[in-house]
Amino acid sequence: MYGGSVGISFMQSGARTPTRRQLLSAIAKVGGTAALYQAMTSLGHAAETRFPGPPNLQGARPGASVIVLGAGLAGLLAAFELRKAGYKVQILEFQNRPGGRNWSLRGGDSYTELGGATQKVGYAAGNYFNPGPWRIPHHHRTLLHYCKQFGVALEPFIQFNHSGWIHSSQAFGGKPVRFNAAAADFEGNIAELLAKSVNAKALDDAVTLEDRERLLEALKGWGMLDKDYRYAASLRTSSHRGFKRPGGGGVDGAPIPSDDLYSLHDVLDPQVWTSMGFFMNHEMQTTMFQPVGGMDMIGKAFAKQVEGLITYNAKVSKIAQDDKGVVVTYADTVTGKVTEAKGDWCVCTIPLGILGQMDLAVTDEMMAAIKAVPYSGQVKMGLEMNRRFWEEDDDIYGGHSFTDQEIGLISYPNNNLFQDGPAVLLGAFARDLGAFRLAGMTPEQRIEVALAQGSVIHPKSYRKEFRTGASVAWSRVPWTLGCCARWNEETRKQHYQTLVAMDRRIVLAGEHASYVGCWMEGALLSSLDAITRLHKRALSA
Amino acid sequence: MYGGSVGISFMQSGARTPTRRQLLSAIAKVGGTAALYQAMTSLGHAAETRFPGPPNLQGARPGASVIVLGAGLAGLLAAFELRKAGYKVQILEFQNRPGGRNWSLRGGDSYTELGGATQKVGYAAGNYFNPGPWRIPHHHRTLLHYCKQFGVALEPFIQFNHSGWIHSSQAFGGKPVRFNAAAADFEGNIAELLAKSVNAKALDDAVTLEDRERLLEALKGWGMLDKDYRYAASLRTSSHRGFKRPGGGGVDGAPIPSDDLYSLHDVLDPQVWTSMGFFMNHEMQTTMFQPVGGMDMIGKAFAKQVEGLITYNAKVSKIAQDDKGVVVTYADTVTGKVTEAKGDWCVCTIPLGILGQMDLAVTDEMMAAIKAVPYSGQVKMGLEMNRRFWEEDDDIYGGHSFTDQEIGLISYPNNNLFQDGPAVLLGAFARDLGAFRLAGMTPEQRIEVALAQGSVIHPKSYRKEFRTGASVAWSRVPWTLGCCARWNEETRKQHYQTLVAMDRRIVLAGEHASYVGCWMEGALLSSLDAITRLHKRALSA
Repeated sequence: MYGGSVGISFMQSGARTPTRRQLLSAIAKVGGTAALYQAMTSLGHAAETRFPGPPNLQGARPGASVIVLGAGLAGLLAAFELRKAGYKVQILEFQNRPGGRNWSLRGGDSYTELGGATQKVGYAAGNYFNPGPWRIPHHHRTLLHYCKQFGVALEPFIQFNHSGWIHSSQAFGGKPVRFNAAAADFEGNIAELLAKSVNAKALDDAVTLEDRERLLEALKGWGMLDKDYRYAASLRTSSHRGFKRPGGGGVDGAPIPSDDLYSLHDVLDPQVWTSMGFFMNHEMQTTMFQPVGGMDMIGKAFAKQVEGLITYNAKVSKIAQDDKGVVVTYADTVTGKVTEAKGDWCVCTIPLGILGQMDLAVTDEMMAAIKAVPYSGQVKMGLEMNRRFWEEDDDIYGGHSFTDQEIGLISYPNNNLFQDGPAVLLGAFARDLGAFRLAGMTPEQRIEVALAQGSVIHPKSYRKEFRTGASVAWSRVPWTLGCCARWNEETRKQHYQTLVAMDRRIVLAGEHASYVGCWMEGALLSSLDAITRLHKRALSA
Repeated sequence: MYGGSVGISFMQSGARTPTRRQLLSAIAKVGGTAALYQAMTSLGHAAETRFPGPPNLQGARPGASVIVLGAGLAGLLAAFELRKAGYKVQILEFQNRPGGRNWSLRGGDSYTELGGATQKVGYAAGNYFNPGPWRIPHHHRTLLHYCKQFGVALEPFIQFNHSGWIHSSQAFGGKPVRFNAAAADFEGNIAELLAKSVNAKALDDAVTLEDRERLLEALKGWGMLDKDYRYAASLRTSSHRGFKRPGGGGVDGAPIPSDDLYSLHDVLDPQVWTSMGFFMNHEMQTTMFQPVGGMDMIGKAFAKQVEGLITYNAKVSKIAQDDKGVVVTYADTVTGKVTEAKGDWCVCTIPLGILGQMDLAVTDEMMAAIKAVPYSGQVKMGLEMNRRFWEEDDDIYGGHSFTDQEIGLISYPNNNLFQDGPAVLLGAFARDLGAFRLAGMTPEQRIEVALAQGSVIHPKSYRKEFRTGASVAWSRVPWTLGCCARWNEETRKQHYQTLVAMDRRIVLAGEHASYVGCWMEGALLSSLDAITRLHKRALSA
């Protein structure tokens, strides 16, 4: 049924049906990206990924060399694939570790932010906090592919948890409510109001008679309405929102319905429906994953594949190029020694805010593009608690509680569920104004804010069980000056194609050179696209 | 703030704040169940569990003995707690293994159903199929408590998966559609219709002006409506329902929105909204768990706690009682030898359909109750596939696809995600008429139905990758004659209190003696309630 016009030998042999990935890879080889994409969508599935399999970089010229700037995921993947293709590769990395924003902080680690504040991390052995990426969507197949290839063990990241708390200072008397109860009451109210409209004949022009009947049936079933199309306290509505007393065993086993339904006014609070909508977001949909042992397991595994190619502590100051090649000037941040690295080509993954400050031999248009894109400044905090009170007292295993306070959310650890002893939760994922204010504080002040605001969600235990914490304000991270690139419609139109285009011998890669910004997948897809074009250019040069 | 009127010494010491469980346990000791429950709900959380901690069975009379019938979870827990309290306990079990319906089939196992058909299970090493219980809600705290106490490792059961397929023979041209797309379009259509009603002033009497504005804002946000309150193809709606081409990296990175929105008529199909509502069901809400290695790890761990107390292969035929004690007559199913077991008391967990056929010394009312409750007859099938095509080709990691065919659903394994090699999926969870028809077939015929119907969801791979399968039709399970007790409002009213009441020296326990029917938690809560009452009776006898 597929690929009839594309002559791919193993499809006609009949001996072994190719896997989907083999097939796509073969189509890409024959027909290029456009044919590939057409084939992918015609395979009958909604297109969930842009990853057609590892790139095909055949025919590299012997001795051709590439300097890769940055040992984040984009740089590491570029180095891995280019070296595999036959290029001579050197990676220059500012930090003393691989991974870039793919990063985990553990007990014993030390981190100094811009401004000079140094935090010594005091978590118990085995515990960690991921300041950067922390969850992997199931459709980020590039990342999943290389995690498997490089032996990174993944475990479920429990994204969606019906038991999480929702807190709004503007609703429910300022008290946190359970997601299941708020969502059930939102749906119930929506269903009741729409049923009322249908029954009042307000939609007779818009909906056929048959569909009006189907609609009423759907509203009753989905929205838990009673026979009169009302959303009211009952065992039935309790089966969605929770019981006053759930069913039990023996003599007193009968359940008692909850009768404290939330008002329409309260469930229309934005915290309720943005929380519900959050889980429907393409990147946030279940199933999600995390590496076993911390997010930096990925960066470490990628780095292991290019062992020996990375020069750490290399602070790049100048990137020059001419018709012959690229010269990168860097200083060793430990010894101060300045060196020039030379190569035929350059894949530059340095974050734009850093790159824009360098002496850079690119066109004015490229420089304008580099300087046009601001970075977001999220603040994340990892708080270690003496015990998992959210599990033991609140029945919350992984997932998030949302709040309209500056911390934004509390996210509960997805590893070592049910274990005794200290555990690290994400005590803040602040954005925008909240992040701005938190970034302006000392690390100690930030923790105090996180404890005060977290105590609104967990009043009895949050301060009492707190042990130690660490924060990363991304606007103060010396090697990125921000969390990730924040394109808008206007900058995309004006600068994106310039930014991703090869500037003679230099090509940029990273999440900033993608439409999957802020995600590791964006960095990898950008990297694959950049090196594929670099390779083509190198062959024709 | 809590327990002011309940004099509990450790609360006043101030030395160490009690955990919630310690507190509840203490309240129960002082004030009994009623006080306990009041305290639980006044602790400020919605009541999620009926488990107040292990029972307090102090003061058992030396030498008092209990015969426990059945080594399922209810029986095993009764034996464990009663022995701990000082009772002399003997368990009689019909099968040659503990756990009862807590059961896993593995390669090498053999199972003979009523009617004589024997299946030899051919799964690869390490693979298993759970014919009975297969998932544990996060609020089933009795089970979670004993799993932790008895060392049963749990892992997430990926209940909710936005990428699962929804299939209805009556909608979408009979083709499966992704849950995320169908749910997004359902929500979008509901939001658009309700916004239309609001804007047409159809709800002015029902909703205040302020809430009408909040409602419109909510519908726009939750339902992804555009500025004209329409649900239409766009990058925004695609961010919920999926893209035609999602964002990528580099030159061709721009996403393309999906433009094949489903019609109102289609998304009103019951398969759509019942699937959406399913995940809001109290027992089905995330986070859920499963034991690492198969569900029977629980039964085995419980059994290990009462090692030496279980007599296997014991077929009970008669349960007699008088003022002095209980006499149970049973035959060894291997040797045929008939024995009488004697005890002061009896906890009987034998499923009602079996129990009703025995020579049983209980009141007529109790016998009527035992015979009044029919059992459901679910059919489950575990199909082993050569590879995880649902992961590799469809981006589905755990969770379910739903269909209106007899198989009901396909559920994907939650263990060993990303692994190569054979894996077992749940190929059917049939109920009612579908189950009835499947139960009437040979095991081979059932597999054929499962393959034919599963192929509608996974047309390219289902048959091709099929390796071997096993089925359990619960109406044909010799030791239960059904899956679980099916109470209705009428039978509850007429018979439930009789069934759970002590009949002189005999008390019944099991999921059938609970309001958490069909769940392991119901069996355990019933067991705890039964032995607590038995103990009281024993003290006053």
